[in-house]
Amino acid sequence: MNTETICALATASGGALGIIRISGPQSLEILSHIFTKNLSDARPNTIHYGHLVEHSDESTVVSQHPIDEVLVSVFRAPHSYTGEDSAEISCHGSRYILNKVLELLMHYGCRMANPGEYTMRAYLNGKLDLSQAEAVADLIASTNQASHQLAISQLRGGISTELSRLRDQLLKLTSLLELELDFSDHEDLEFADRTELLQLTNTIEDRITTLAHSFETGQAIKQGIPVAIVGKTNVGKSTLLNRLIREDRAIVSNIHGTTRDTIEDTIDLHGVTFRFIDTAGIRQTTDEIEQIGIERTFAAIEKARIVLWLIDQMPTEAEIADMAERSKGRTLIVVCNKIDLESYQNLQISIPDSKFVRISAKTGIGIPQLEEVIYQAADIPSLNESDIIVTNARHYDALVRAHESLQRVLDGMKNQLSGDLLAEDLRLALDQLAEITGTQITPNEVLGNIFKNFCVGK
Amino acid sequence: MNTETICALATASGGALGIIRISGPQSLEILSHIFTKNLSDARPNTIHYGHLVEHSDESTVVSQHPIDEVLVSVFRAPHSYTGEDSAEISCHGSRYILNKVLELLMHYGCRMANPGEYTMRAYLNGKLDLSQAEAVADLIASTNQASHQLAISQLRGGISTELSRLRDQLLKLTSLLELELDFSDHEDLEFADRTELLQLTNTIEDRITTLAHSFETGQAIKQGIPVAIVGKTNVGKSTLLNRLIREDRAIVSNIHGTTRDTIEDTIDLHGVTFRFIDTAGIRQTTDEIEQIGIERTFAAIEKARIVLWLIDQMPTEAEIADMAERSKGRTLIVVCNKIDLESYQNLQISIPDSKFVRISAKTGIGIPQLEEVIYQAADIPSLNESDIIVTNARHYDALVRAHESLQRVLDGMKNQLSGDLLAEDLRLALDQLAEITGTQITPNEVLGNIFKNFCVGK
Repeated sequence: MNTETICALATASGGALGIIRISGPQSLEILSHIFTKNLSDARPNTIHYGHLVEHSDESTVVSQHPIDEVLVSVFRAPHSYTGEDSAEISCHGSRYILNKVLELLMHYGCRMANPGEYTMRAYLNGKLDLSQAEAVADLIASTNQASHQLAISQLRGGISTELSRLRDQLLKLTSLLELELDFSDHEDLEFADRTELLQLTNTIEDRITTLAHSFETGQAIKQGIPVAIVGKTNVGKSTLLNRLIREDRAIVSNIHGTTRDTIEDTIDLHGVTFRFIDTAGIRQTTDEIEQIGIERTFAAIEKARIVLWLIDQMPTEAEIADMAERSKGRTLIVVCNKIDLESYQNLQISIPDSKFVRISAKTGIGIPQLEEVIYQAADIPSLNESDIIVTNARHYDALVRAHESLQRVLDGMKNQLSGDLLAEDLRLALDQLAEITGTQITPNEVLGNIFKNFCVGK
Repeated sequence: MNTETICALATASGGALGIIRISGPQSLEILSHIFTKNLSDARPNTIHYGHLVEHSDESTVVSQHPIDEVLVSVFRAPHSYTGEDSAEISCHGSRYILNKVLELLMHYGCRMANPGEYTMRAYLNGKLDLSQAEAVADLIASTNQASHQLAISQLRGGISTELSRLRDQLLKLTSLLELELDFSDHEDLEFADRTELLQLTNTIEDRITTLAHSFETGQAIKQGIPVAIVGKTNVGKSTLLNRLIREDRAIVSNIHGTTRDTIEDTIDLHGVTFRFIDTAGIRQTTDEIEQIGIERTFAAIEKARIVLWLIDQMPTEAEIADMAERSKGRTLIVVCNKIDLESYQNLQISIPDSKFVRISAKTGIGIPQLEEVIYQAADIPSLNESDIIVTNARHYDALVRAHESLQRVLDGMKNQLSGDLLAEDLRLALDQLAEITGTQITPNEVLGNIFKNFCVGK
């Protein structure tokens, strides 16, 4: 149980409002030093209007300096985010005020919260498991429909439920093995059990494999799918990029007041983000004359999953062979630009395993078709809300290790190892799955690593 | 009465939490379409935990997609910020989620709020007067103790009370004039009244003059006091600037999680902000050899209220005369740097109406003394919480016009003008003071101008 009371700004600074969160046993007591209303009898989940004041003690005359008119929301343990007594102060979003309030709260005994400390306390108090806690950070970071859907499904316990099912099956397996041990002198019985055990182990292993494999999709969705636009100078690369990006941005910018601060060159197609790699570099390149091959372009292709090869004239056989070779392992989309001009209308090209799209970046002809081809090329399985997709490297790592443990169980079964030897690896697999949800006691070091990447205030 | 229900993001995006505000008669009804809990019987000032969901209607099967786990605060008219039914949704601060929620609210009938529209509604519903409404924007923008103090005093009705007192006196004046009119055939009475009238008018005029004069201080506090650091190359200008700024910043940066996004070169001394003008330019100037005079430096002096002239050797008579001339109308502080080195220890200089400070920017010697001299040079009257300082150009303009009207009243009295002629100007002065608090009906155009500079969401 935490005895320290923590505080932090939970919103970004610079808005009309700023929310300061306090959590811990002294929350309301500390607040009472600076809030003009007595909250000691405040009912949980109620909001209180009042003033924050600073007391200054100048030569025996105590005076109050007003800091802000605020609303204070009161939460009582265990019915709060952290599971502790807590409060949220809704201040005016002035940097001066927010700093001042934090300063006063610390003066009266709060400690500044560490990144993710509210969520860590929620985990330690059993409000959510570890994979749900991680989903909170993913949810905050989500910028598109797909990454949002994965995060909210995880927050709602999608992975937790699935893992708990798998652990139940592993426990069943363990108890079957124990049964086998009890009757180990009956030779017939052993073989009957082994068939069932093998089947069950295979089923569990299959499921874990599927989960581990979903990590690739999860990563693509979470980080965006890397796309390289390559082609000769003046072929229209930046016009195409601008068109793809602008069309996407228009959707967002008609929602007032929600600025996209850090705009990368990305587009969202059917809720999936596509990231254009190092395209700024390619755009600024002027020494790229009459050949595709410069270092930077190759590096972009190297990092891409999808390569858009923009052309406005028939490439030579050598160029085609070169591009086919370089884009191996990626999806190559040959994009013929400038089809609004007569001279480009009959251009055709066919490279095995590649797509071909005809567009005019300038007029917009063919852009929706190109977007569809890009989306298809990403090969993202259409997600149902019930699908479990692993997005977290820590989870993936644990799944891979659990898979290895189960593999050893299967090998052991084939080699007729005794139940107690198999049980050891089963136990390992159980622990490895438990790591994901933090069902067993999680070392502080691991917790520290998980929460250090959270924002302060969450 | 507004019939439209408005919504907006009230916090900056990019934090752990984002607050979306809804206000208007349909607030709770619109919210009910996307919130999993029925709020129609929710008590005012209560907080409700639940999920935001999106309903999708795919071929007769209606399904719910979860958007976020949220807290909803419910406020009921007239006990809310706007005076209307309203609600605040505390979401996770993901751009995707915040956009999605705003999109859904608009889908179900909300309109995106205009800048300052919540505060404008609060004004229109009599929750605050116009000068208080303006104080809200100032409060949010306040970055130091002094500007914060002025804003909060104005928000708490400092100016409103003062103006209401002045208007009462003007009304008394008007009724005295009317009394005079009623007895206008009694010649003796008139003269008796006139003395009292004159005295009262003078008192009111004095107070209005004081208020109008306070605008200069108000502006200095609100915008920061411009300071130019000038001097020859290698005299230590940037070392001094860095030291002044760094010492200030250290105070702020030990408060975790409150980043200062746009850091100008400013320092706060006793709660007042000092702005260093165009110093980046001066710092980067390399062609400034062996003479003070370059365009940029003069331009900086031009814009400054305080000039720090940094020297490390005795200037020539011509240089001293030049600097004295150029800094006319400003406070000149001659700062002798490098006193940690023996060769600089005996440097002395005396220019009429200037200050002299000896420092070592490198070691920090004399810096506190220099800061004190800078603060004194700003000549900010020490503020009491009860002091009324005008910070708003609109208020200043109205006060100047009210002052002119009263001046005409005084002139009229001297010229023995009749009461009904005087009453006209008195009426004008009354109206001009009323403009400040918006006590009378304020034209939409004026309201538009006032609120357009607010942030969205306030």
